[in-house]
Amino acid sequence: MKTVLTGIKPTGDIHLGNLLGAIKPAIEMSRSGDFDRALYFVADAHALTSVRDPEIFKNYVYETTATWVALGLDTEKSIFFKQSDIKEVFELTWILNCMTPKGDLNRAHSYKDRVQKNQQEGRDLDHGVNMGLFDYPVLMSSDILLYDTNEVPVGKDQVQHIEIARSIAGRCNEYFGEGTLVEPQEVIQKNGSYVVGLDGRKMSKSYGNVIPLWGTEKKLRKTINKIATDSTPEEAPKDPDNCTIMELYRLFATADQINALEKRYREGIGWGYAKLELFEVVNEYLKEPRERFNSLMNNKDELDKILNHGAQRASEIAEATMKRVRSRITGF
Amino acid sequence: MKTVLTGIKPTGDIHLGNLLGAIKPAIEMSRSGDFDRALYFVADAHALTSVRDPEIFKNYVYETTATWVALGLDTEKSIFFKQSDIKEVFELTWILNCMTPKGDLNRAHSYKDRVQKNQQEGRDLDHGVNMGLFDYPVLMSSDILLYDTNEVPVGKDQVQHIEIARSIAGRCNEYFGEGTLVEPQEVIQKNGSYVVGLDGRKMSKSYGNVIPLWGTEKKLRKTINKIATDSTPEEAPKDPDNCTIMELYRLFATADQINALEKRYREGIGWGYAKLELFEVVNEYLKEPRERFNSLMNNKDELDKILNHGAQRASEIAEATMKRVRSRITGF
Repeated sequence: MKTVLTGIKPTGDIHLGNLLGAIKPAIEMSRSGDFDRALYFVADAHALTSVRDPEIFKNYVYETTATWVALGLDTEKSIFFKQSDIKEVFELTWILNCMTPKGDLNRAHSYKDRVQKNQQEGRDLDHGVNMGLFDYPVLMSSDILLYDTNEVPVGKDQVQHIEIARSIAGRCNEYFGEGTLVEPQEVIQKNGSYVVGLDGRKMSKSYGNVIPLWGTEKKLRKTINKIATDSTPEEAPKDPDNCTIMELYRLFATADQINALEKRYREGIGWGYAKLELFEVVNEYLKEPRERFNSLMNNKDELDKILNHGAQRASEIAEATMKRVRSRITGF
Repeated sequence: MKTVLTGIKPTGDIHLGNLLGAIKPAIEMSRSGDFDRALYFVADAHALTSVRDPEIFKNYVYETTATWVALGLDTEKSIFFKQSDIKEVFELTWILNCMTPKGDLNRAHSYKDRVQKNQQEGRDLDHGVNMGLFDYPVLMSSDILLYDTNEVPVGKDQVQHIEIARSIAGRCNEYFGEGTLVEPQEVIQKNGSYVVGLDGRKMSKSYGNVIPLWGTEKKLRKTINKIATDSTPEEAPKDPDNCTIMELYRLFATADQINALEKRYREGIGWGYAKLELFEVVNEYLKEPRERFNSLMNNKDELDKILNHGAQRASEIAEATMKRVRSRITGF
């Protein structure tokens, strides 16, 4: 039995960087069949550490759900659910809190980064740190351990979280007997080169250089037109290997399309034309998902149904785990 | 609508100090009718911060439950339940974590005491502190806020916990609108003089000077015989106002009995006789409760039934609160 688990941070304004960096690889994994059980959850309880507006919060959850379904996540082959629908995750978080030395969390990267920044800026070391933020490596451990997860695909910067989960599970197995919790392994994702943004830097909301995934065709075209280009005249030959437009084009076009456009670059091409070509392939890729996304966002009942279906299935696993954990740890 | 709430730490070896200091006043309150709703819960999730043996853990919960029921807590007039049976308490704990500055917990007395002790002993400041211990003021806030509690009877040393709960509730009401959570008030219990132990100091498990509540008559008699006395000869007059036996006797005897024994003291009394008199009144007080306690401890199904009945009723309140809180905070 091999269980893999992927947590999805609910956000708004999902962009091409998210699509290619995280969503597409995860959806491809869900179809690979290289596991017995794949769980995907919208990590809404984690979002609570920072989001303070219920309308925005709810919309993030729905948008994220609609995005993954629209892009082809198989909600039958995999179990797709909202984290907070499984109440056991909070119960297990408390139990694991009691088994986790505070010192382990003092040393968590994300917390240490905050402390360092506060120190540099001469503020109280815990300025802006709420307990959700401080404790979230334990919630994350609970996410993982609740479903007897064997493998968690992560980026390099997330490895510490899996280490913390594994160490907590190991400690529980020592106290309460082998098999109390499954000790998970990280599977480090080979980070493809990042997706480039409108200004040539890594596409990221914090740089304000993203191409949003959803919205109208018109908006997509307008955004792509904002890609920064130089003032090389239209007729001058251009280097296809040193161009943001081309870099993005390669991510969506076929080999033939890429060859053809590279040829045009070397012959001389207007930036407007290149951008139009890019728009065509991106739009082609997004056309059907966009329709599905819009239709789902206009039908919240359908989204609720999808999440409820996932919650029911996740719940069965969670209940079995908690029955075992409770009995081992509390005798009940 | 006035709701009062009392948390009960599950322990073993409950003694006369617990009975007179905490249990009896709380049970009397439950019968006073000075509220619309009284909740009593066995705080098993708090016990998890320190207990590591499932057999001991379970027994603590059952013994505590049987003790309170045997001593006359009305489980119909009040709602008596096990904390962890209401899963919403863990969900709310997480939500409140996200609304609680870590700094507030850095300043919690119990944590600060630990840090100070570690500092004095030259150890890592967080030595022996697990996250359950660090975070338990938030769990305690969740206990209180989940049931829209208005008043919490506490000793002076517990006031900070109610302050933390009130401050969290206040913050949530500011963020998410008035009425999101009820802001609780502490009701400071006038601490009667403490109950004296076998050696004349305060009765406390840490002094090893307790008179256990339960056990056989024979054991009770044996324990009372251990009360420290001096070697004044039997026929010498004795001071009834300066004697451990008499101090305990006053807590259980009638006015007439007290007068009679005081007279005997002044005329001269053997310690053995005085101890027997004490045994008689204590045993008289405990006789029926002891039978009920033993019968409950021999019938765990009955204890489960009592706890389940309470959980069902507590659950209705918790669900209503969480529906309101979730909707205000997450939109769901």
